[in-house]
Amino acid sequence: MSDHRFIKLDFLSQPISLSLFQVKAKQVGLPPGALIHVGQQKTEQPIISLIRYDLSSLDCQTDISLEQAAGSRQEGKVSWVNLSGIHDTAVVEAIGQTFEVHPLALEDILNTQHRPKLEEMQENTLVILKMLFFDQDSQSIRTEQVSMILGVDYVLTFQEQEGDVFDGVRGRLQRSNGRIRQRGPDYLAYALIDSIVDSYFHILEKVGDHLAQLEEVMMEGPDPSMLGRIHHYKRQLLMLHRSVWPLRDLVSELYKEESPLVAESTRVYLRDLYDHCIQVLDTVEIFRDMVSGLQDLYLSSVSNRMNEIMKVLTIMASIFIPLTFIAGIYGMNFEYIPELRWRWGYFAVWLVMIAGALGMLLFFKRKRWL
Amino acid sequence: MSDHRFIKLDFLSQPISLSLFQVKAKQVGLPPGALIHVGQQKTEQPIISLIRYDLSSLDCQTDISLEQAAGSRQEGKVSWVNLSGIHDTAVVEAIGQTFEVHPLALEDILNTQHRPKLEEMQENTLVILKMLFFDQDSQSIRTEQVSMILGVDYVLTFQEQEGDVFDGVRGRLQRSNGRIRQRGPDYLAYALIDSIVDSYFHILEKVGDHLAQLEEVMMEGPDPSMLGRIHHYKRQLLMLHRSVWPLRDLVSELYKEESPLVAESTRVYLRDLYDHCIQVLDTVEIFRDMVSGLQDLYLSSVSNRMNEIMKVLTIMASIFIPLTFIAGIYGMNFEYIPELRWRWGYFAVWLVMIAGALGMLLFFKRKRWL
Amino acid sequence: MSDHRFIKLDFLSQPISLSLFQVKAKQVGLPPGALIHVGQQKTEQPIISLIRYDLSSLDCQTDISLEQAAGSRQEGKVSWVNLSGIHDTAVVEAIGQTFEVHPLALEDILNTQHRPKLEEMQENTLVILKMLFFDQDSQSIRTEQVSMILGVDYVLTFQEQEGDVFDGVRGRLQRSNGRIRQRGPDYLAYALIDSIVDSYFHILEKVGDHLAQLEEVMMEGPDPSMLGRIHHYKRQLLMLHRSVWPLRDLVSELYKEESPLVAESTRVYLRDLYDHCIQVLDTVEIFRDMVSGLQDLYLSSVSNRMNEIMKVLTIMASIFIPLTFIAGIYGMNFEYIPELRWRWGYFAVWLVMIAGALGMLLFFKRKRWL
Amino acid sequence: MSDHRFIKLDFLSQPISLSLFQVKAKQVGLPPGALIHVGQQKTEQPIISLIRYDLSSLDCQTDISLEQAAGSRQEGKVSWVNLSGIHDTAVVEAIGQTFEVHPLALEDILNTQHRPKLEEMQENTLVILKMLFFDQDSQSIRTEQVSMILGVDYVLTFQEQEGDVFDGVRGRLQRSNGRIRQRGPDYLAYALIDSIVDSYFHILEKVGDHLAQLEEVMMEGPDPSMLGRIHHYKRQLLMLHRSVWPLRDLVSELYKEESPLVAESTRVYLRDLYDHCIQVLDTVEIFRDMVSGLQDLYLSSVSNRMNEIMKVLTIMASIFIPLTFIAGIYGMNFEYIPELRWRWGYFAVWLVMIAGALGMLLFFKRKRWL
Amino acid sequence: MSDHRFIKLDFLSQPISLSLFQVKAKQVGLPPGALIHVGQQKTEQPIISLIRYDLSSLDCQTDISLEQAAGSRQEGKVSWVNLSGIHDTAVVEAIGQTFEVHPLALEDILNTQHRPKLEEMQENTLVILKMLFFDQDSQSIRTEQVSMILGVDYVLTFQEQEGDVFDGVRGRLQRSNGRIRQRGPDYLAYALIDSIVDSYFHILEKVGDHLAQLEEVMMEGPDPSMLGRIHHYKRQLLMLHRSVWPLRDLVSELYKEESPLVAESTRVYLRDLYDHCIQVLDTVEIFRDMVSGLQDLYLSSVSNRMNEIMKVLTIMASIFIPLTFIAGIYGMNFEYIPELRWRWGYFAVWLVMIAGALGMLLFFKRKRWL
Repeated sequence: MSDHRFIKLDFLSQPISLSLFQVKAKQVGLPPGALIHVGQQKTEQPIISLIRYDLSSLDCQTDISLEQAAGSRQEGKVSWVNLSGIHDTAVVEAIGQTFEVHPLALEDILNTQHRPKLEEMQENTLVILKMLFFDQDSQSIRTEQVSMILGVDYVLTFQEQEGDVFDGVRGRLQRSNGRIRQRGPDYLAYALIDSIVDSYFHILEKVGDHLAQLEEVMMEGPDPSMLGRIHHYKRQLLMLHRSVWPLRDLVSELYKEESPLVAESTRVYLRDLYDHCIQVLDTVEIFRDMVSGLQDLYLSSVSNRMNEIMKVLTIMASIFIPLTFIAGIYGMNFEYIPELRWRWGYFAVWLVMIAGALGMLLFFKRKRWL
Repeated sequence: MSDHRFIKLDFLSQPISLSLFQVKAKQVGLPPGALIHVGQQKTEQPIISLIRYDLSSLDCQTDISLEQAAGSRQEGKVSWVNLSGIHDTAVVEAIGQTFEVHPLALEDILNTQHRPKLEEMQENTLVILKMLFFDQDSQSIRTEQVSMILGVDYVLTFQEQEGDVFDGVRGRLQRSNGRIRQRGPDYLAYALIDSIVDSYFHILEKVGDHLAQLEEVMMEGPDPSMLGRIHHYKRQLLMLHRSVWPLRDLVSELYKEESPLVAESTRVYLRDLYDHCIQVLDTVEIFRDMVSGLQDLYLSSVSNRMNEIMKVLTIMASIFIPLTFIAGIYGMNFEYIPELRWRWGYFAVWLVMIAGALGMLLFFKRKRWL
Repeated sequence: MSDHRFIKLDFLSQPISLSLFQVKAKQVGLPPGALIHVGQQKTEQPIISLIRYDLSSLDCQTDISLEQAAGSRQEGKVSWVNLSGIHDTAVVEAIGQTFEVHPLALEDILNTQHRPKLEEMQENTLVILKMLFFDQDSQSIRTEQVSMILGVDYVLTFQEQEGDVFDGVRGRLQRSNGRIRQRGPDYLAYALIDSIVDSYFHILEKVGDHLAQLEEVMMEGPDPSMLGRIHHYKRQLLMLHRSVWPLRDLVSELYKEESPLVAESTRVYLRDLYDHCIQVLDTVEIFRDMVSGLQDLYLSSVSNRMNEIMKVLTIMASIFIPLTFIAGIYGMNFEYIPELRWRWGYFAVWLVMIAGALGMLLFFKRKRWL
Repeated sequence: MSDHRFIKLDFLSQPISLSLFQVKAKQVGLPPGALIHVGQQKTEQPIISLIRYDLSSLDCQTDISLEQAAGSRQEGKVSWVNLSGIHDTAVVEAIGQTFEVHPLALEDILNTQHRPKLEEMQENTLVILKMLFFDQDSQSIRTEQVSMILGVDYVLTFQEQEGDVFDGVRGRLQRSNGRIRQRGPDYLAYALIDSIVDSYFHILEKVGDHLAQLEEVMMEGPDPSMLGRIHHYKRQLLMLHRSVWPLRDLVSELYKEESPLVAESTRVYLRDLYDHCIQVLDTVEIFRDMVSGLQDLYLSSVSNRMNEIMKVLTIMASIFIPLTFIAGIYGMNFEYIPELRWRWGYFAVWLVMIAGALGMLLFFKRKRWL
Repeated sequence: MSDHRFIKLDFLSQPISLSLFQVKAKQVGLPPGALIHVGQQKTEQPIISLIRYDLSSLDCQTDISLEQAAGSRQEGKVSWVNLSGIHDTAVVEAIGQTFEVHPLALEDILNTQHRPKLEEMQENTLVILKMLFFDQDSQSIRTEQVSMILGVDYVLTFQEQEGDVFDGVRGRLQRSNGRIRQRGPDYLAYALIDSIVDSYFHILEKVGDHLAQLEEVMMEGPDPSMLGRIHHYKRQLLMLHRSVWPLRDLVSELYKEESPLVAESTRVYLRDLYDHCIQVLDTVEIFRDMVSGLQDLYLSSVSNRMNEIMKVLTIMASIFIPLTFIAGIYGMNFEYIPELRWRWGYFAVWLVMIAGALGMLLFFKRKRWL
């Protein structure tokens, strides 16, 4: 049990951040489409990387300049431009202009408090997603916003910081025989979203383990520190719910929409992705039900314990208070108390007191308090 | 009541498994359609069996090789290939390729954490179901995934382990005059799903019995161990709800879809199956309402009992504490306490004390605490 | 108030049956359409009765044979065949075959655990309903299943036992000038369903009276036995809700469907029937809200009472424990306690104690506990 | 605060009527359309009044005979026949026949327990509404049913008793220049419904005031009598909700329906009426949320108070019980207790006791109970 | 922590106003469209201001007369007439007649208790919104109604008092190169609504800060004053929810409607606005969940604390009450108590008492109360 305690103290001593609930507060009166970065700066220098491929060739460049990014598109090839670090609005704007991204879409990309959404625009489609990762230090789920622009022969991705969630996709691109090389940017976009949704399962697995642990500990008896823990998980799951919920609609929209950017053959994969989203949502809902079940269990246990404490108190008091009263009687100093002079008075009083105590015990037995 | 206790201790001493809530955790970055078995290996050796029939003939083979399975389809006959044990991905893949099953469908079949679903593909239709059975040892409901591929003249079923839920269907196939022999693979698929849904009623019957028992015991008075029991059933019903809920949509989809694989004459049976699903769901909902009713009852009973305990304590303390005080007064050693020298002082004090006690009792009577 | 108590004890001493929640448990593996009676046998001998009428004539026969029932249809007349007692599957099957009822419909008729539903089949339409009646002995609502087959010139009704709910309809049939004689079997079916729905209002009236009584008693103060009563009504209303809910959809389906069996002129009556169903549902919902309001009231009252008990205990203890302590001080046997030798020591101590007690009383007054 | 108390005692001493929840209980087996008055008789003699108008003339007659009412329709004029007192079914039936009202509609008009509804019939349209008024005596909301028949050139209204809610409309009719005189019976019907909905705002205002008062009083501290008050308002709002809810659908139906009885120019007013209904519903919902918030607040306050009581008890007991024990020790009569003979023994004991008491106080201070 | 206390006391000492819930109570019987100002008069003198612009010119006039406003429309220019102070119904009516606003719309504009709505009329479109601002003094959110009339070449806005929320839009209009000058009145209306929705984020940020603070303080231990605070925020969020909810539908209607007044190019901005509304609603929902989570936490903490208090009381009482009893025994004055004469009797009694106390302590240790 010691390690449970360890975990518990661990996260209770951490300040619980409200970051997910932070609210966009751009200055009132700014025109729509004004490009302002909302959120924390998470990396020092924005880094642009490019992967350009077709079935036969793959071209992979890291830390390129804006100009190289601008000239990246090639006939018949798919270009994937990834930007890590979006606090420099100029870089985002430059990329946006090169690929004809609507100013309102750029505004959304820069606002890292945005909720997940899909928006089809004239030239391309904007997808905003939340990447989740588990912060071991604060035992909390943290989020990072990932935006994606899907065009006719390119995919742009915007991350808040350098990450490794897309490494799997990069690996599959490098293997020349993969299905991913035979298909267009829509399949690439699908693969990227899929890798994000897949990572959710890791978070859920972790949360599931924690809940199972918590339940196990609770079965042994309630402990005030569990309260904080339950509250913590409740909030984590509330966050998770709010992050995952719009995702379902987003994927369903992508899957159902008659967009010319999404090939018919990709739809079956989107349907599969949709199933995964449903499963994530389902699991989050189960976890929420479980946490509220744990809370009920905790409250009932506390209630039980109080009951037990009261029983002990009542039994002790009910037995000894009358006895003490009897002892008090014969401690009185009246000049004439006949019993005091009896030869067996003392022993008679003991008999009476023992009988009284047994009577009380019987009474409690009958009430099933013993 | 002893047997209730027995049951209760029985399941409380068991570790309550979270298996249904386990979350698929395939490695991030794997391409979609990669075939990996997710879940426990429940049987040693995958066993393939085949039943091939038309109106006049029936051919029944157990433990056949992959090659035999591959060559099983015959013009004008219905082939039912059943695989027990899906941990060997190679076998599943081989069968899948023979019957032109889409790789994504195979991935779903291998992932035993999948939620029930129906997916119509180009060549055939995938149905994923949960078979439920009641584990007497842990007093819990366990699930096993059953997948089904419905094709133009074949049905493939994939079970995690050798089971007997389909024995009824096998029996009806062997009787030559049954309706099932006159119809195609769609009716066979219906019969198989129907036998799974039918088995749910057994589970519900068991759960209903348990709840009735629990309610009966609770009427006699609350008991802390009931708390765990209520929590246990709540979770079992949550599991059940989550397993059965997608089933309804699945059957409704099968029933409404204009699939060429499902004959018009089979639809009336699917409608009947749909009714059964609704009834299962309804019953689960009733049980959930009942359990939460029991929880309310438990909490109120605990509250009542606390009330009663407090009443006893208060009555005992309120009567004897003042009396003890009076006795204490005349136990003081002051040199001049006039009452001590009175002839009838001692008896007067007794009178006063008895009057006081009666007064308190009257007070409690008036407050209806007695 | 004595009669409330009487009622209360009355139903609390009864075992509360779970009959409505019983779950169909036909043997797994039976083919669909297999005719098995599920439920209790409620009558000894199935009795068939026939009423055949047109505008000018009425023919009324009781306890007829199967053959007579089979030959009952006559050109231009409406035949109403009623079967009381459905445990003899052979009789049901025979009637079913005569009137071309689908085997699945017969299976549903025999399963008395079925939920209300309407199913339009090729030849005729199946309606399954629950008749409710209030069992005075157990203070519970009991249900009986009534099934109906509406054909082109006949109505079949299947009851579990001989009842009198249809007597009103029989009476109206016998009066030659009634609207019912001028119309077809659809109007007869409507009249029968209407008489069942009408009977629901009686149940609701009874439940409403009980709730009003319960509320009145509760206003006087909480009583542990109310808990069981509240729980009882909660379950009764849960049952009622589950029985009535499908009814609404059923009637709405009947009303909206473009069935050739239902004449246009009957629809206005079905609309009226639908209104009644809504009103029943509404009332059940109100009652459920009322019961949960009563539960809240009960819990709050218990909380209040506990509060009051605690206050009495605290006041008594807080006043007398310090006083007893002072008395104890001067009961000590030290050789040198100066106060003991003072002339007015005893009276001074009394003064101190009275002042202390008054101080405590003032303190409690200020806290508004007195 | 005294006036709050007054109000509170006022309504608590009243029997709380369940009238709104009364359930129609017409005799089972009566044919549909049978005219029976359900509800209380609220007036002695039914009174018929007639207002007939066109743009240029207005004819106003009170307490006319049935024959006069029958002959009231005139080409090109709008006739508004109002009947106050509907317990005399013969009068209602006579009016119904004159204006070709469907028997089922008359049945609904006579059943004062009916829920609000709109029903378009062949000749005319039936509207059933609830008029609400606040009964100062029982501090409760009472309802009265108002039914309306809208025909091609007439409006019939049926009230349970003589009322003044329509006086405003009568006034506007008498002013010759009003919009109402230029328009048909549909606008008159709208004006009548509007005046009923308007009156709801008065009720809501009153309820809002009461809730604000209750909240204010509660902020000062919980009081058991508030419990009854909260329960009372909860039920009042439940009633209100159930009365207003169907109204919304009713007006929306009237507004959307393509009825020839409703002129296009009237629709914009109906849309406005619909907005008012939404606002009433919204306010009721807010009030319900507020009441349940008050209930939470009450329960938490009670919990807090109990906490405080316990703290006082615990502090008193924990300080004095050990001290009394010490005093008891030296009250023992052993022949050899060395301390008793010490010169400063008595004072040493005082020191020990004071130190112990201070220690306890410090302990409670540290626990922040003081 | 002192500043939390400060804030807390601050708002608890304020009377919490119910203004948002005030209910329109125009006099019953007034004809629809009668112009009455409902609400508080918030400014002394209504002020009309006008901004008229096209791409090349901008004309800005403050405090103009009604006549000037009437003649403000010019071919090819957009006129924005703003009225601050709507209590003078004559002014509102005059403006309304000039711009052909429907009387029902004017009635809605004057009723400041109206819920947000959009209504498309023949000549123009009415939009009613709530502007929110945070009142530092009462720590409450206050609302002001802003109405808007969108016409073919004009926008009318009606505010309750002079405000600065539109200053940003005015500023953008004055910059000649802004997008806003190139577009019509629909874009102006969008910009105005957008600036109101943007201001909501400020409110939410403030509420979020408060909740985070409250949570932090609560983690340190429960405090009765938090109860009021939680209740306060619950009501504030209820208000917020009710104000924001209709906004979503309003914007969605504006966005989807095929109104000729809204240009196709403006729709993408409305879609963006819709996203913002969803985000506001989402955040309000999260906050509501958080507050109810805090309430649960508070109640559980109180429960825990009570538990702890009871434990201390029980331990103290259970140890000392039996000891006091023993002391009482040997304080009795019986003539013959053999133990009193023993040489080591006193010390033996001490041994027994210490052993008893240790036994109790062990018992409590085993129960894990220590």
